[in-house]
Amino acid sequence: MSLTADSATTTAFDLGPARALSCRECGHQIPLAAEFACPECFGPLEVAYDFGTVTRESIESGPKSIWRYRHLLPVPSDVQSHPNTEPGLTRLIKADRLAAALGVRTLWVKDDTGNPTHSFKDRVVAVALAAARELGFTVLCCPSTGNLANAVAAAAARAGWDSVVLIPSSLEQAKVLTTAVYDGTLLAVDGNYDDVNRLATELAAEHEDWAFVNVNVRPYYAEGSKTLGYEVAEQLGWRLPEQVVVPVASGSQLTKVDKGFTELGTLGLVEPTPYRVFGAQATGCSPVAKAFEDGHDVVQPVRPDTIARSLAIGNPADGPYVLDAVRRTGGAVAHVSDEEVVEGIRLLARTEGVFAETAGGVTVATAKKLIESGQLDPDAETVLLITGDGLKTLDAVSGHIGPSATVPSTSKAVREALAARGL
Amino acid sequence: MSLTADSATTTAFDLGPARALSCRECGHQIPLAAEFACPECFGPLEVAYDFGTVTRESIESGPKSIWRYRHLLPVPSDVQSHPNTEPGLTRLIKADRLAAALGVRTLWVKDDTGNPTHSFKDRVVAVALAAARELGFTVLCCPSTGNLANAVAAAAARAGWDSVVLIPSSLEQAKVLTTAVYDGTLLAVDGNYDDVNRLATELAAEHEDWAFVNVNVRPYYAEGSKTLGYEVAEQLGWRLPEQVVVPVASGSQLTKVDKGFTELGTLGLVEPTPYRVFGAQATGCSPVAKAFEDGHDVVQPVRPDTIARSLAIGNPADGPYVLDAVRRTGGAVAHVSDEEVVEGIRLLARTEGVFAETAGGVTVATAKKLIESGQLDPDAETVLLITGDGLKTLDAVSGHIGPSATVPSTSKAVREALAARGL
Repeated sequence: MSLTADSATTTAFDLGPARALSCRECGHQIPLAAEFACPECFGPLEVAYDFGTVTRESIESGPKSIWRYRHLLPVPSDVQSHPNTEPGLTRLIKADRLAAALGVRTLWVKDDTGNPTHSFKDRVVAVALAAARELGFTVLCCPSTGNLANAVAAAAARAGWDSVVLIPSSLEQAKVLTTAVYDGTLLAVDGNYDDVNRLATELAAEHEDWAFVNVNVRPYYAEGSKTLGYEVAEQLGWRLPEQVVVPVASGSQLTKVDKGFTELGTLGLVEPTPYRVFGAQATGCSPVAKAFEDGHDVVQPVRPDTIARSLAIGNPADGPYVLDAVRRTGGAVAHVSDEEVVEGIRLLARTEGVFAETAGGVTVATAKKLIESGQLDPDAETVLLITGDGLKTLDAVSGHIGPSATVPSTSKAVREALAARGL
Repeated sequence: MSLTADSATTTAFDLGPARALSCRECGHQIPLAAEFACPECFGPLEVAYDFGTVTRESIESGPKSIWRYRHLLPVPSDVQSHPNTEPGLTRLIKADRLAAALGVRTLWVKDDTGNPTHSFKDRVVAVALAAARELGFTVLCCPSTGNLANAVAAAAARAGWDSVVLIPSSLEQAKVLTTAVYDGTLLAVDGNYDDVNRLATELAAEHEDWAFVNVNVRPYYAEGSKTLGYEVAEQLGWRLPEQVVVPVASGSQLTKVDKGFTELGTLGLVEPTPYRVFGAQATGCSPVAKAFEDGHDVVQPVRPDTIARSLAIGNPADGPYVLDAVRRTGGAVAHVSDEEVVEGIRLLARTEGVFAETAGGVTVATAKKLIESGQLDPDAETVLLITGDGLKTLDAVSGHIGPSATVPSTSKAVREALAARGL
């Protein structure tokens, strides 16, 4: 669709520090373009950079959003001059009560529910939109398990772009409505995520001005997750945690948090201290955890069956890279049952006042399991990434919680109900 | 319950710059304490301050939450050393597409859905919790129309306090579950907000260690809304907007945004340029708009009947002060029908990618009406306060929106559905 420069070191596009696309398998490089597969070996492409001098001070004096890291992202230098969603700089809270419940010494929760559509997907979509605009696209699209649908439809609305979003028709009603309200094109497909992903890949090949954020502009999109790593380090006072637990769907987020930590060390923005990366899956869709347990390098696709629908990707594109990052850093990938997911949601809510979606329940419950198994060191400083909002997956908890009592509107009835609670 | 110092200028409590409680009616002052009504005339008390030197630089170098304004709030100087929810510093976005749709020149949207429980109530509750701890309370409580329930239950959970929350049993299911998940005591009362408010006032008198945030610690709680005004001014580059539109429930928020703007001017943090404050209500609960229209100084209570349940306070405590602020600044209070509320939600979503709850729909629709009537100047810089999240009031839009189409999982079906949309 767009112009492609004729050498790997020149480009027609202003994508900030991004210099080329590099194959993660064979290392072959091509100029920056709307490509996602290596022309040599069909391996996945990722962004390679020439970072200039980036200082803590320049970041700290930047905008209070992911654009403070714009000199580390594949976005135009004038990224702030176009309407976008300005996600990021969400809370990192010291989670002492959850730490006590889990039996760990120092625990932090990165609460990414504060983003514009209340999941980390606003980060990757904001980067994808900025890059897609520069690459010449005019329509923002995706296949999605829900959170991405919300983020794409919202970002497109804000930018004044058309959007085309494909979702499984079985999606939670909250995620359907919270996409539809932005008034783009929303197709509900009678199939699972892997089905809608396949359909999206076909459409991406047919429409040259449609940017499917997680398909044909995936190399740019995926880089947005680095900002989770950057923020954690900055919010800790410019240092890396010793352990981080990340939910695994496609696996991209985990690999990019790892990449972000490594970049900060290389650039001298933090001490390059060792850290261990852990992946969290639901048992009903745990192909990466299974490969980790079995000592395999490849991931065997599965048919998902779990309440953690935002993690229900049976054929995770970045599975092998997750295994690599986890093994290289000394981490692990583990999985938890749907019952444990609900318990994880409730534990996080009652100890820290953070209401996570099912994916957050997976993260908390997996952390608990990894502590119990001794794989996660209870004396090492640990960060849990909570990447989505409980309001979007109310069904997961609705059978388990409710009012303590429903009473008539009289003082007597209220007092009796309180007395029954020991109050 | 707690110690009360014996002169209006000394206090046993560290509540930062707060110096005394001052009656809004008769001006009588009492020492800082857990009081809310004037002992002389029963008028409402509010916090009076002795501000030290506060600079833009000291604020800008502070935390990325409302605690950057701690030297302007009635909270202990060590407020950050106790677990709290760290709300604030939410997005202020330039809303060019909404501006075009409404026919105004310069429009900003303050998107307070990014707060921990996704409404501005996290601001007031965080201040109330900090003050209540210092005043000696141990249980956090409230009557609520929903958003406050979420915020109180979450903040109490994070602090490790018990909570007691009273809600009307008719409340939206999302707001019920998003309170219950934090595992405090939640009583659903078969009555409206004014009923639960009355019951809460009785309980507050009976339990000396229960802080009902909007009853017996209301003077402290209410000050949290000043931070909305502070942030708007800071995010505009330390200046005041010319017009601001604020939803009106109890009316407290509007009066405190006004107070915040005035304080910034007095302290020399901004030029004290003129601004006009506008109030927004739903027709089904518009006692303040009615009093404004009729030229009255007092507000006649009504029985609420509107989908904007978070604004459904039929007997608004700060109604007269809203009328005063609006008339003094040259603003107005107007009201819109439930149909206009839904249209307002959808307009904001499709133009700016912000999904507001019904209160946000009231604000947008009222701004539209005030522009059409000529009361809001289309050439003056205007800020709309969007204070709650659409995910909590899905019922308001669920009959109006949905997928563009639901199709089988085949390329042919998808292409046909797209063609039907002209894509």
